[in-house]
Amino acid sequence: MNDNLSADRPTFVTHLECSLTGECYAAEQLYNLSRAGRPLLVRYDLDAVRAAVPREALAARATDLWRWRELLPVRHTRNVVSLGEIETPLIPIPGSSGAPTVWVKDEGRLPTGSFKARGLVMAVAMAKELGVTRIAMPTNGNAGAALAAYATRVGIETIVFCPDDTPEVNVREIAAQGARVWRVNGLIDDCGAIVGKGAAEGRWFDFSTLKEPYRIEGKKTMGLELAAQLGWRLPKAIFYPTGGGTGLIGMWKAFEELERLGWIGPERPRMFAVQAAGCAPIVRAFEAGEEHAERWEDAHTIAAGIRVPRAVGDFLILRAVRESGGRAVAVGDPAIVKAVDDCARRDGLLLCPEGGATLAAYRQALRDRLVDEDEEVVLFNCATGLKYPLPAADQRLDRHGAIDFDVL
Amino acid sequence: MNDNLSADRPTFVTHLECSLTGECYAAEQLYNLSRAGRPLLVRYDLDAVRAAVPREALAARATDLWRWRELLPVRHTRNVVSLGEIETPLIPIPGSSGAPTVWVKDEGRLPTGSFKARGLVMAVAMAKELGVTRIAMPTNGNAGAALAAYATRVGIETIVFCPDDTPEVNVREIAAQGARVWRVNGLIDDCGAIVGKGAAEGRWFDFSTLKEPYRIEGKKTMGLELAAQLGWRLPKAIFYPTGGGTGLIGMWKAFEELERLGWIGPERPRMFAVQAAGCAPIVRAFEAGEEHAERWEDAHTIAAGIRVPRAVGDFLILRAVRESGGRAVAVGDPAIVKAVDDCARRDGLLLCPEGGATLAAYRQALRDRLVDEDEEVVLFNCATGLKYPLPAADQRLDRHGAIDFDVL
Repeated sequence: MNDNLSADRPTFVTHLECSLTGECYAAEQLYNLSRAGRPLLVRYDLDAVRAAVPREALAARATDLWRWRELLPVRHTRNVVSLGEIETPLIPIPGSSGAPTVWVKDEGRLPTGSFKARGLVMAVAMAKELGVTRIAMPTNGNAGAALAAYATRVGIETIVFCPDDTPEVNVREIAAQGARVWRVNGLIDDCGAIVGKGAAEGRWFDFSTLKEPYRIEGKKTMGLELAAQLGWRLPKAIFYPTGGGTGLIGMWKAFEELERLGWIGPERPRMFAVQAAGCAPIVRAFEAGEEHAERWEDAHTIAAGIRVPRAVGDFLILRAVRESGGRAVAVGDPAIVKAVDDCARRDGLLLCPEGGATLAAYRQALRDRLVDEDEEVVLFNCATGLKYPLPAADQRLDRHGAIDFDVL
Repeated sequence: MNDNLSADRPTFVTHLECSLTGECYAAEQLYNLSRAGRPLLVRYDLDAVRAAVPREALAARATDLWRWRELLPVRHTRNVVSLGEIETPLIPIPGSSGAPTVWVKDEGRLPTGSFKARGLVMAVAMAKELGVTRIAMPTNGNAGAALAAYATRVGIETIVFCPDDTPEVNVREIAAQGARVWRVNGLIDDCGAIVGKGAAEGRWFDFSTLKEPYRIEGKKTMGLELAAQLGWRLPKAIFYPTGGGTGLIGMWKAFEELERLGWIGPERPRMFAVQAAGCAPIVRAFEAGEEHAERWEDAHTIAAGIRVPRAVGDFLILRAVRESGGRAVAVGDPAIVKAVDDCARRDGLLLCPEGGATLAAYRQALRDRLVDEDEEVVLFNCATGLKYPLPAADQRLDRHGAIDFDVL
């Protein structure tokens, strides 16, 4: 039996810290951004973790997200919430060579069909722990669905705002799972402005990306898991679809924590922040050598999940990418569509458009000699491809007529 | 690292056996039905398995479907195919009491979003092992998607036939994953007739449910997994959505094999075969005390996956249900819709209609005192709820106007 959900295990959180100024904040209190208007990062007593649990002990637990409890912020087991946050599989994409140098980490297997479950399961558990009763959030779809599912499960009221062209399946999923959902004539930051206004009036707690400190702790489990799955080493490069960038920041934080624990060495993957050509603020800032990214006007791409014109954690994304020796790269929608189609048709794996963007970016990086063919890389497929429109396939056969088997 | 896909491990298959007459067939040959026109079952040297691998050794392997290799038919590791067949999570449905007596086994987390992946990964691996190059299959949707994905991955050509009202997402998914798919004006057995005709002409190999012997071996891993997850005991009752019934037959076979291995005792769950009121041939046969089930005319239900008017393994389903002390039960579409809606709205878990049918049947069984509230039961959610239409949720907010926060 999986006792990750029921065993009392300690958290080793010491405090929170402003990601810009380093200013300290006491744990076990409710926060949005720091006084400097920046994301707060959770800090742990890693020496104590090292003394308390060898990595083999964690690796031997049932392989779900909650096995990392000592590296997560939840204090009381009664606040742990779960819809089955399994370790997501690494699926090889057969290359020209026999060796599996390209892995897809298939995050579509998580509850509500996307990696947003990692961040939201943690943020909701902490909201429960800290007494939040009403949450609002802007979303491009998947985050709202994950929030709705977990908040419903713990009895927290939820209101979600999404751009009016958010895929129908996402909007319906959010509503079916007990949240109230509103379509807004704008983009995700326009939705965020409404959430911020309501929060300022004390109507709800603001759950926007990186505006509360715990989603990043959930997302960092992608990095912890990857290290454990690869036998406590890391790939040479990671291609990550980057909207708000919580996952990229979270993995970078995870790698640092793992090294300080002595569980991995100093080697790091080159981090590739993948954006769509129609919405690439991080790429523009990366290429200009800027520390912050300006809002991208007239954002458009079929990969709705990375249609994020402005990211509050822009400097953290850019810092991780640069420190790693990676790049921020943009790919066009046609390359995304082709990558999704090729992967399904050749490898039997249906990626979401954002996952397709990572494959397109990997191909581009191969051409640009930013990665070698024999380097082991991991692409993040952040959601199930089943949530997105697929091409029509309308062939009909009349069983009452004569069947010409030769044309089937 | 998961070495389940790369380690050479023996199979312990001895032969195949007609499920009706017991007639023996040599292993490592291509078969459809037995000479008596019935499904073939794969038999193993279980004494040798017991001597070769303690259950703890299997349990310690990476928790995917391929960890059961010694109890599966694939002989050569090079024929193992995988898209990440993870162990699916057991998710508690909070009841009135605190104890999790009701678990949902969430099969929607498997590749292509349904439990069909279990059967098809095995059948395709064996088709590869036995030299098949062209496969045809009738499907209500999910089986076709799983076949397409795995067959594409190993380079086998595939042609799929589905009823013309099969959900659009399934048809598109099948085509996107490289199979040719035809809509047919009829039900799944009408599609099956076309597949059978082409097979008789030597145009392809017939992959219909139970008409080749290996899908059931893949499906039996549901039973193996459940036993391992619950610490080598079984629940008091299992509610299983029953169309062709491969999974129910497969689990029953798994339990028998586990007992003969000495890994579980003689206790069995009561098996509840759940059908829709609009297509309930097994229920009708169960109640009439028949050994076989007649075709159900004018089949209709929103739970397309269990709209199977005639099952070639009818007598095996009925036998398992009766031996277990369980029942075949039918639930109406309104009860299915209500169960799906309640579970999403209260527990944050989006079931597919067939999964909803098991919850509806459980509720009905509680009312009819066929199960007690404090008995541990497992419901099978056989596919992700995201593949199915959800109610519209159309609320719009104009960000340019004045926002009345009180009504949000």
